Amino acid sequence: MLVFKALESLMTVNGRLPVNVKVLIEGEEEAGGESIDHYVRTHPERLQCDAAFICDTGMPSKQIPALINGLRGIVYTEVEVRGAKRDLHSGEFGGVAPNPLHALALIIAKLKDAEGHIQIPGLFDKVRKPTEAEKEFWQNDPLHINESLLEEMGVSQFSGENEYPPIERISARPTLEVHGISGGFTGDGAKTVIPAVGKAKISLRLPPDLKSEEAFALFERRVKELAPPGVQVTVRNIHGGEAVLVPVDTPAIQAAASALKEVYGKEPVYLRGGGSIPIGALFDEILHASVVLMGFGLPDDNLHAPNEKYSLSQFYKGIRTVARFLQKMGE
Amino acid sequence: MLVFKALESLMTVNGRLPVNVKVLIEGEEEAGGESIDHYVRTHPERLQCDAAFICDTGMPSKQIPALINGLRGIVYTEVEVRGAKRDLHSGEFGGVAPNPLHALALIIAKLKDAEGHIQIPGLFDKVRKPTEAEKEFWQNDPLHINESLLEEMGVSQFSGENEYPPIERISARPTLEVHGISGGFTGDGAKTVIPAVGKAKISLRLPPDLKSEEAFALFERRVKELAPPGVQVTVRNIHGGEAVLVPVDTPAIQAAASALKEVYGKEPVYLRGGGSIPIGALFDEILHASVVLMGFGLPDDNLHAPNEKYSLSQFYKGIRTVARFLQKMGE
Repeated sequence: MLVFKALESLMTVNGRLPVNVKVLIEGEEEAGGESIDHYVRTHPERLQCDAAFICDTGMPSKQIPALINGLRGIVYTEVEVRGAKRDLHSGEFGGVAPNPLHALALIIAKLKDAEGHIQIPGLFDKVRKPTEAEKEFWQNDPLHINESLLEEMGVSQFSGENEYPPIERISARPTLEVHGISGGFTGDGAKTVIPAVGKAKISLRLPPDLKSEEAFALFERRVKELAPPGVQVTVRNIHGGEAVLVPVDTPAIQAAASALKEVYGKEPVYLRGGGSIPIGALFDEILHASVVLMGFGLPDDNLHAPNEKYSLSQFYKGIRTVARFLQKMGE
Repeated sequence: MLVFKALESLMTVNGRLPVNVKVLIEGEEEAGGESIDHYVRTHPERLQCDAAFICDTGMPSKQIPALINGLRGIVYTEVEVRGAKRDLHSGEFGGVAPNPLHALALIIAKLKDAEGHIQIPGLFDKVRKPTEAEKEFWQNDPLHINESLLEEMGVSQFSGENEYPPIERISARPTLEVHGISGGFTGDGAKTVIPAVGKAKISLRLPPDLKSEEAFALFERRVKELAPPGVQVTVRNIHGGEAVLVPVDTPAIQAAASALKEVYGKEPVYLRGGGSIPIGALFDEILHASVVLMGFGLPDDNLHAPNEKYSLSQFYKGIRTVARFLQKMGE
């Protein structure tokens, strides 16, 4: 939307665009994005370009423009545990029946311990080492990102791996999060059922070099290892996407930086994003284009949560920034 | 229903009942049964009786009539875990946010281990020792109850405390079962939310002498102890009921045994039930009546589960048995 407004403005003012633009719309990213993956892999010649601009990231605050130079990959799974052939009554079968919800708890508790350490053998073997500059940035937190994280969460302390700086944990460490658990009786009051089935949605965020297929295989093996006797466990790979870490000294990224500086009045910071935009890695791998990840979201946008919003001032500044970026690319 | 049919039949045949009958209908047992508890405690004189007959139990099979001489108590709880002030996106906050579902898994995994051992200090201190006859019955399983349990569950092995016979586990050991977990995203596909809240329904079945209030206090303390830092835990006591173990040499129980023998052609067995019928303990404690737990349910009735049924032949035999029981009580 914001990008289209920028293109429209350029057309209105100049009657033409400053560079050739190919628009690729991804309408199913939240559902895994298989179609675009297939399309890009089978049509690299039609999509040939110098730079691939993706406008789907954010900034630490309205005052701090940012370019994202890395994204994590993801593998999103569903773990299904089956016990008895039907729901059972705990007064009759409690103590001898397999309980899929208890089994799920046992599995999840051992996948990641109370201190936030993921316990999946092999998972950390391939993670690329960060640079000294990144380590320093994470440690010193010059942008006070930690403060804003705590405020957004409404908590007084960070959970997770205490021995790593919070910024590293949200952007460059592998993470494992449980997104949902279902099974049994969850209404008001009491029902003493031992459900036949329980399910959990669990994803891993993957730093560069840790491939999603590989991570899934390690995850699946570990989940099955951790399953208590008496239950059947199925692990489904709902979708995956790869991480990316891009060089920032390309003409395209420098043009984006210069546009941000013009509109926001200061140099942008370079940050890794903790989320996953699989087309970032895809454009890097297949099109060998300079991937520009410039976006205008804010930490309090409630991304993917109730009451999601988008700041109007960011929207308008974003349009101007993108228009200037394209003009600079044409120069 | 079955009991009313027996009363109706006796009235039809004899024009009168063989004994004085006071009928007390409990319509909210599954919701905790607070009203009947209050009523019985405040009206013991109106309910004065020699025997309190409760028709809400079962038999091991159509061929094996049974009288229940013990029931477990119950404490049914809801554990609510709260993390951040709102749902969060795992790409932005994964690795630093409290995750209530992960916290629930950690708590549940430590409340009961993979071998079925409940880890709640103090819980086993007050459990009454079984008799030698009971131990022998549990160990030898002359009625092949184990076989029928496995068949009903559709599994090849028992889960839980291997060092105790299955029959003891379902009827005389404390049990802890998770009945439901809810929180986060549980639909089809993927949503990378870290939910702000997760809930679990967990109950304990309590053998005689382990009071439900006491068990709740031990449970609550343990859950709070097990909660990882960064989350707030609330433990609610949804409802409780006490266990009961009745003597079987009373005239009322002997009349019931004799009626069962007449209708089924063999002596009934005496079993403890694993479920909870709080009015059993209530009548024992407040009315000092001989509590007769005679019922006609079968293991494959799918009690409290989808496709619950009641055998018609058991229904008709039950009516005859109850009528004969009342006649014998009058003799």
